[in-house]
Amino acid sequence: MKNFTKFENKTTAEKLIQQAMHYKENPWIDKAKGQGKRIGCIFLNPSMRTRASTQIAAQQLGMDAIVMNMDKEGWALEMRDGVVMNKGTIEHIKDAAAVLGTYFDILAIRAFPSLTNKQEDVEDFVFNQFIKYSGKPVISLESAIRHPLQSLADMVTIQENWNKEIKPKVVLTWAPHIKAIPHAVANSFSEWALGCGHDLTITHPEGYELDEAFTKGAKIELNQAKALEDADFVYVKNWSAFNDYGKIITTDHSWMLKEKHLKKSKNAKVMHCLPVRRNLELSDEILDGPRSLVTQQAKNRIYAAQAVISQILG
Amino acid sequence: MKNFTKFENKTTAEKLIQQAMHYKENPWIDKAKGQGKRIGCIFLNPSMRTRASTQIAAQQLGMDAIVMNMDKEGWALEMRDGVVMNKGTIEHIKDAAAVLGTYFDILAIRAFPSLTNKQEDVEDFVFNQFIKYSGKPVISLESAIRHPLQSLADMVTIQENWNKEIKPKVVLTWAPHIKAIPHAVANSFSEWALGCGHDLTITHPEGYELDEAFTKGAKIELNQAKALEDADFVYVKNWSAFNDYGKIITTDHSWMLKEKHLKKSKNAKVMHCLPVRRNLELSDEILDGPRSLVTQQAKNRIYAAQAVISQILG
Amino acid sequence: MKNFTKFENKTTAEKLIQQAMHYKENPWIDKAKGQGKRIGCIFLNPSMRTRASTQIAAQQLGMDAIVMNMDKEGWALEMRDGVVMNKGTIEHIKDAAAVLGTYFDILAIRAFPSLTNKQEDVEDFVFNQFIKYSGKPVISLESAIRHPLQSLADMVTIQENWNKEIKPKVVLTWAPHIKAIPHAVANSFSEWALGCGHDLTITHPEGYELDEAFTKGAKIELNQAKALEDADFVYVKNWSAFNDYGKIITTDHSWMLKEKHLKKSKNAKVMHCLPVRRNLELSDEILDGPRSLVTQQAKNRIYAAQAVISQILG
Repeated sequence: MKNFTKFENKTTAEKLIQQAMHYKENPWIDKAKGQGKRIGCIFLNPSMRTRASTQIAAQQLGMDAIVMNMDKEGWALEMRDGVVMNKGTIEHIKDAAAVLGTYFDILAIRAFPSLTNKQEDVEDFVFNQFIKYSGKPVISLESAIRHPLQSLADMVTIQENWNKEIKPKVVLTWAPHIKAIPHAVANSFSEWALGCGHDLTITHPEGYELDEAFTKGAKIELNQAKALEDADFVYVKNWSAFNDYGKIITTDHSWMLKEKHLKKSKNAKVMHCLPVRRNLELSDEILDGPRSLVTQQAKNRIYAAQAVISQILG
Repeated sequence: MKNFTKFENKTTAEKLIQQAMHYKENPWIDKAKGQGKRIGCIFLNPSMRTRASTQIAAQQLGMDAIVMNMDKEGWALEMRDGVVMNKGTIEHIKDAAAVLGTYFDILAIRAFPSLTNKQEDVEDFVFNQFIKYSGKPVISLESAIRHPLQSLADMVTIQENWNKEIKPKVVLTWAPHIKAIPHAVANSFSEWALGCGHDLTITHPEGYELDEAFTKGAKIELNQAKALEDADFVYVKNWSAFNDYGKIITTDHSWMLKEKHLKKSKNAKVMHCLPVRRNLELSDEILDGPRSLVTQQAKNRIYAAQAVISQILG
Repeated sequence: MKNFTKFENKTTAEKLIQQAMHYKENPWIDKAKGQGKRIGCIFLNPSMRTRASTQIAAQQLGMDAIVMNMDKEGWALEMRDGVVMNKGTIEHIKDAAAVLGTYFDILAIRAFPSLTNKQEDVEDFVFNQFIKYSGKPVISLESAIRHPLQSLADMVTIQENWNKEIKPKVVLTWAPHIKAIPHAVANSFSEWALGCGHDLTITHPEGYELDEAFTKGAKIELNQAKALEDADFVYVKNWSAFNDYGKIITTDHSWMLKEKHLKKSKNAKVMHCLPVRRNLELSDEILDGPRSLVTQQAKNRIYAAQAVISQILG
């Protein structure tokens, strides 16, 4: 595995899931594997959970991790080719990525979408510039369109909570939010759930259709109640519109998941990538009740990252 | 020892003081003790000395330390139960603490008081939310009402500078400041000095009475000159009013400690937790002279933290 | 070697260059050398490359590195002696440096010039305060007037790209910029290039004369075309005026280095310390072409820092 930026295939995914579960049992078993190796964690956008879980994963493999918060440290990067840099940007991505490539064995990069320039976002422009110019393996810590480490952790969590032969019914439901939120978590969850063979239904208010590149094969059901029937896992997430790009079309509170929505899915477990806005996206009663897997998902971020780094180390 | 948030009892305090002094002589003697363990240092308020000394203490025990500056990284936490999170807060303390509890073996937390909501501050609300929801041992890096690591370092410093059988006369004197400053250092110093059996006198302008919960047993003497007579150790610190909560009642410059105040206490050593505003809280002549113990106190922060972490590791 | 703040002499410089090249071949050869030692990296001004390369260098020597971004963490230091600190500064350099001196075995410090107070800048006032009050070895991560780690990396880079007996012709050329930039890189490059015995020509528009303290022995040639003739290495850098202190006298775009300027120096390699503003300081065609050594220079920052820290460890 050279880069980890998306779902590759079922075999690779299953191997990573097994490896993550193995590390969860034995966090320090490969502590010599990364010795003398360095991972650079480059944040163009803020992070707490992702930063900590990646650092921890690296430490458990014996690696040194160095964090660079480019967003906070005022290191505005120029992305456009050929431009005269006489404005606010102080370094070109070409030069920054090339230098980081000489400093680190692996780069882990977070680069959110603009939510205004649809084409650049869909092409994952910023993220791909890093891959192009660094010359080193790159791990996505969430790009404009995908958040594969989250999805890997989510797949691990589903596996830990499912012991039947048949695949579970997984529902991805849109939830209200007050801000325009990226599609990355929803896209990746769909991509991974489908790739892993789960029976995926996606439900959302009209106008919130996700990019079909990620949802092909999922059942789209705009009636939330119908979608939730007999669900085994319900993944709650807000995203902004994709067609009317980056817009908030509705904040309809009736879409917020409550116990009453789950009457016809008694055993459904509820998932969210965190941070979650309580009583806006998801109700206290669910988050504080026995259905919630959110803390377990967050913990699994460590082992997902550890499995991925380990695979890249080879 | 599960948590380290306040003075527990004399036996525990003396054991920690001895352990700290032992680590000062042999910083790396327990470098295998914390291997494979992680401490998360969570700052809801800024820090330099506390952050560095805690990281160093952890390193000397072979632990990995990860710092999270929630104040600077824009991670506004919601503290109130049941609220609809449709404003500025992006994650509830319940969820953040639960996740941090799965990431770390020990949490070390800094959470200053509001100085506006007296009841919440006195209950140490924010700090206790972390304890409640993280499920892991918690070390106070200064809460709304206490700063026990500072006080432990202070007790070590007094012990290092005192070789008589009888207990020293310790004076805690209020000093002027231009900002409204928390009570945590003054509260804890009083709590620890009294708990360790020192003869403690507290002096301050009228209106600056501290919470009696911390000062019971101390002599309160509003005449600074009288209080300072025959002092062995003078601890200089500003705090805002407790009764007229969070207010600045006076900035009377005559309260700033100078050599002339110490004519009747020839051998008195002078202490301050730093950072100190020179010539406002404390004069250059004292800080640059032989009485000052401030650098020694700051150095002892390392060994205080190391003793506490070591005890919690067990 | 106690401190590393400037060019000392040719013998020391050559030893450091050799040591850096040795570490580039064998980064982990001295990984036990710094064990149990700590370096504190204190930034009064922002940094990415310098911070990362210094942390990496320390790690490769087995040291713990702790970074303190005083600029971002709101820790405004008072520098003036005897002042009443009743304004914005919260800690005096005397106290901060003394404490840092007890926390670390080596301090590495970045302190940019004001570009307004010429006398203080020329005396390297802030930087020297740290040396004065910390009592520990200090490494410059760029001071008001020098950037010796950059220059050491530059000397390594020249040596790696030169295999003739005679010394190369090195040209330092001013480049346009939109901001007032410090003199530190230009000063140090001149100091080191001359000290290492290179044939140095400096070229710049009239009014951009550097401080003669650093350039004595260099050929000053105001005609850029003439200066560049037969150059082996061309170092491109902007700086503000020194005589009319901190001013931007011209941003004459014709000074930006392009291929056409190098017709009479076919094999010239081009250097820049990064970050570089493309097509303002230096053209894409050069940066993306075979002449550019900029990434190599940046990589050599690691080994320069490692050689210096290793020397100080002794």
